[in-house]
Amino acid sequence: MKFNFDDLRSIENFSKNFLLTWEHSIEELKATIHVAELFRKLHKEGKSFRQFDTGLAVSIFRDNSTRTRYSFQSAANALGLAVMDLDEKKSQIAHGETVRETANMLSFMTQIVGIRDDMFLGQGNSYMREVGEALDMGFDEGTLHQRPGLVNLQCDIDHPTQSMSDLAMLKQYFGSLDALKGKKVAMTWAYSPSYGKPLSVPQGIIGLLPRFGIDVTLAFPEGYDLIPDVINTARANANIAGSEFTITNSMTDAFTNADVVYPKSWAPFHVMEKRTELLMTGNDESLKDLEQECLLNNSSFTDWECTEDKMKLTKNGSALYMHCLPADITGVSCKQGEVSASVFERYRKETYLEASYKPFIIAAMMFLLTTDNPIEKISKLLKN
Amino acid sequence: MKFNFDDLRSIENFSKNFLLTWEHSIEELKATIHVAELFRKLHKEGKSFRQFDTGLAVSIFRDNSTRTRYSFQSAANALGLAVMDLDEKKSQIAHGETVRETANMLSFMTQIVGIRDDMFLGQGNSYMREVGEALDMGFDEGTLHQRPGLVNLQCDIDHPTQSMSDLAMLKQYFGSLDALKGKKVAMTWAYSPSYGKPLSVPQGIIGLLPRFGIDVTLAFPEGYDLIPDVINTARANANIAGSEFTITNSMTDAFTNADVVYPKSWAPFHVMEKRTELLMTGNDESLKDLEQECLLNNSSFTDWECTEDKMKLTKNGSALYMHCLPADITGVSCKQGEVSASVFERYRKETYLEASYKPFIIAAMMFLLTTDNPIEKISKLLKN
Amino acid sequence: MKFNFDDLRSIENFSKNFLLTWEHSIEELKATIHVAELFRKLHKEGKSFRQFDTGLAVSIFRDNSTRTRYSFQSAANALGLAVMDLDEKKSQIAHGETVRETANMLSFMTQIVGIRDDMFLGQGNSYMREVGEALDMGFDEGTLHQRPGLVNLQCDIDHPTQSMSDLAMLKQYFGSLDALKGKKVAMTWAYSPSYGKPLSVPQGIIGLLPRFGIDVTLAFPEGYDLIPDVINTARANANIAGSEFTITNSMTDAFTNADVVYPKSWAPFHVMEKRTELLMTGNDESLKDLEQECLLNNSSFTDWECTEDKMKLTKNGSALYMHCLPADITGVSCKQGEVSASVFERYRKETYLEASYKPFIIAAMMFLLTTDNPIEKISKLLKN
Repeated sequence: MKFNFDDLRSIENFSKNFLLTWEHSIEELKATIHVAELFRKLHKEGKSFRQFDTGLAVSIFRDNSTRTRYSFQSAANALGLAVMDLDEKKSQIAHGETVRETANMLSFMTQIVGIRDDMFLGQGNSYMREVGEALDMGFDEGTLHQRPGLVNLQCDIDHPTQSMSDLAMLKQYFGSLDALKGKKVAMTWAYSPSYGKPLSVPQGIIGLLPRFGIDVTLAFPEGYDLIPDVINTARANANIAGSEFTITNSMTDAFTNADVVYPKSWAPFHVMEKRTELLMTGNDESLKDLEQECLLNNSSFTDWECTEDKMKLTKNGSALYMHCLPADITGVSCKQGEVSASVFERYRKETYLEASYKPFIIAAMMFLLTTDNPIEKISKLLKN
Repeated sequence: MKFNFDDLRSIENFSKNFLLTWEHSIEELKATIHVAELFRKLHKEGKSFRQFDTGLAVSIFRDNSTRTRYSFQSAANALGLAVMDLDEKKSQIAHGETVRETANMLSFMTQIVGIRDDMFLGQGNSYMREVGEALDMGFDEGTLHQRPGLVNLQCDIDHPTQSMSDLAMLKQYFGSLDALKGKKVAMTWAYSPSYGKPLSVPQGIIGLLPRFGIDVTLAFPEGYDLIPDVINTARANANIAGSEFTITNSMTDAFTNADVVYPKSWAPFHVMEKRTELLMTGNDESLKDLEQECLLNNSSFTDWECTEDKMKLTKNGSALYMHCLPADITGVSCKQGEVSASVFERYRKETYLEASYKPFIIAAMMFLLTTDNPIEKISKLLKN
Repeated sequence: MKFNFDDLRSIENFSKNFLLTWEHSIEELKATIHVAELFRKLHKEGKSFRQFDTGLAVSIFRDNSTRTRYSFQSAANALGLAVMDLDEKKSQIAHGETVRETANMLSFMTQIVGIRDDMFLGQGNSYMREVGEALDMGFDEGTLHQRPGLVNLQCDIDHPTQSMSDLAMLKQYFGSLDALKGKKVAMTWAYSPSYGKPLSVPQGIIGLLPRFGIDVTLAFPEGYDLIPDVINTARANANIAGSEFTITNSMTDAFTNADVVYPKSWAPFHVMEKRTELLMTGNDESLKDLEQECLLNNSSFTDWECTEDKMKLTKNGSALYMHCLPADITGVSCKQGEVSASVFERYRKETYLEASYKPFIIAAMMFLLTTDNPIEKISKLLKN
């Protein structure tokens, strides 16, 4: 088995947090993908890539999530870690001493902490950072024998395990990371009969793909903006990479000549801000009003659907359709949704493959977050 | 340690599903019992029979179950698999794309899927088959690197992990599978102050034991029928095996000269049908009415109790009393129930032993469902 | 690495239960601490002290507990056991056949059973004993291949995993167990705005520390008594060890010249008795009345706070502040609480260290409860 060690060699000090892809160098991201691919290949051949004899991976979920839970558990298990699940769904947002103490109390023998917190705009990622600082402190003070690696399993800003899986899928689909340069990806809003879907998927895509030379067009109906800071970061990084990052209010424009389409619903940024405020003050009445208002607003954009007609606009009429799943499929999972049944069914296998990268991407992140000598360990895996 | 490899040799292609015992050949069932006995012996001697370095066993429970959960976890752990529990108790019955997608999303690194779904007549087993087909598809398409083995942990039709444990217990009690030929087992309904108990235990018993030459008498009060198809299958298989399969409406008749008695409450087939309909339409009012009607009906048959007097009717007055546990014990767990306290206490140890086979039976099923070369692996275990 | 084998040598028959520290000899307690320290050292060096290839640790929690759950899971995992959690929070208090049967059904392949049951005075510890007897019976009858070790994770009487962690912390802080002789520990009640906190922590401390030659002063406002039997045991054991055990109604007296202070709220013994009665009869109305009455009563003692001024009374004004965490910190986790923010912050690191011993103490207990030849196994660990 061949493995390109170049990216690993350039990593001198992989941070103990994986919270936003744009905080990591291109080399670190490449290394993550290469390690994920190696793990995937070993798994396919029935070979173990276990790294730990014992140890724990603690997951904190502030939202329901069977699939991410499964991916996290798969990855932890494959590395030899047992999972302890903390269900904080309905608990209040804790801060200060409580976070500091809990983070330490749950880390004495912990190698990885994974957090999903995507409900509260302005809160999720900063909560993760607070946990990270508490872990740094515990390690510095000697309370913790190791600084657990911290993985963002989806927050208000980014969804790095998803976007990295998407990138790994694109790499396989088009043959290499180099082959992705100049490809056009349409990351577009799509109609859904639900409301309040997080912004982390589209933000993750525009924050990651342009850095690899991919031209990304972000499309959404007027008012469905993403977080301005993320837009600015995406634009700046596209400039550095020499790729194009465009914003449009037309799904048709975005689809035209696209190599890849990623139609996916999300809630407008300003709605998520308002919703966070209402959730935190426990204002149920106003939350219901907000939901009604949003659903009504959404219903003006039912034509933002990925149909066969729209697919014909794409490069040779055969762009790759991507989705983080589950998709709202017209006539299947809802009356009218993000994608028509025939488009989805034609690309169903590819969306499953896209999802199949996630456990290996998470395992690769866990590996790089907990290993001081990745080259030695990968070499050992290749020998066996 | 001796191990009879004959049954294993005759197994050419152990299916990837263990859903109904009557879909498996006698050789496959014998192999399952022999492997379970070997695992049990090794466990008693403190020896590991672990097969996997890492890997997951996913369990989906659509009903409360501490004990089956434990057996599943024990078996998975003994083979080296970590368990991920999906609690679907209150979720709607999903079908179509949702089942197909979820089954694949939870199987990327999964070796075993275990499902318990016994509440809905006509639904449980067919849901399992739907999952099985989704897994076949995922494996064929290359999304899954392996086709996870699928174990029925109790459905509307059969309870194979229970009936196989019962058979293993009978084998030990009477000395061998051959010694079971011509033995008379009374599988009889018994009074319980509760309602809606599944049919899977009596159906599992009549579907399995006659195939091993055991004469089974099924006894129940008029109206407490089992699923007609299962009755037909049991009768046909008894004919093939040359054993007697009799149905009676008299507990006394069934007990007379029996070598084994298995008195256990269940709900009438037609009630379970009606109940399923009401559960699926969420008709709580009618469900309560149905419950009242059934409990009232049950109360006409409080004399269907396994008493000392009835036990005197059995072969030498000393038939083996069996139960899947927990039993409704008169004066202990309820005012009046399936069995008198003195009969239960006399056979308590045997019912515990009966239960103790379950983790090993499940482990044996998991082993055979995931192994291409059982003979090589068993030989290796015997050497160490 | 040096390890003193003397204590291990004197242990001929470590009981299969760890339920009350005062049921264990000084040698057994010392052995537990030495093994915990060894495990902690090995963990710090990144070395495994795994003992089992496969096996289960079953935990039964009759109260919410993230931290104890984590410690139990850490310890089990480090020894190679997977955890199965039984959440019995809201289940009724089971007795008799139900306990006997469940204990056996959940132990076929179980190495350790851990129980936390601190809500019901007069019930928790006796429930544990009932489980222990059921396990003895199952093992004697041959249903169980091994007698699982039984660990008290907190009951109505004692909290041995906490008090032993506290002792381990004191040993490290003062340099040795011998150095603890003659040290003065103030175990005092402190004000908290909550109600119904268990008695197990103060009872555990007075039941353990005097046996190691430590002079313990127990201080509480009039009416906040502990269980009389535990007081008597503590006094008797202090006499045997030649240490002083004093009771006072003045926090100031207790603090004066103390080497260690442990200010911690608890509910009066007679309130816990009444509460247990009301909880068992499900009398919600009276429970609310009782809570109001107690909170009102508590509020007379808000001056029982560990302040900087009180700390000045201690030996050289620098006694060690201990707490089992989480503490009620004035102005941080509540308006007014057990300890002032500045005292807590000054000793925060030490309280975290104190807590960090728990996983290792539990692992040491599990090890000694399941091992017939501890000396051989420890020697093997030291060699690797």
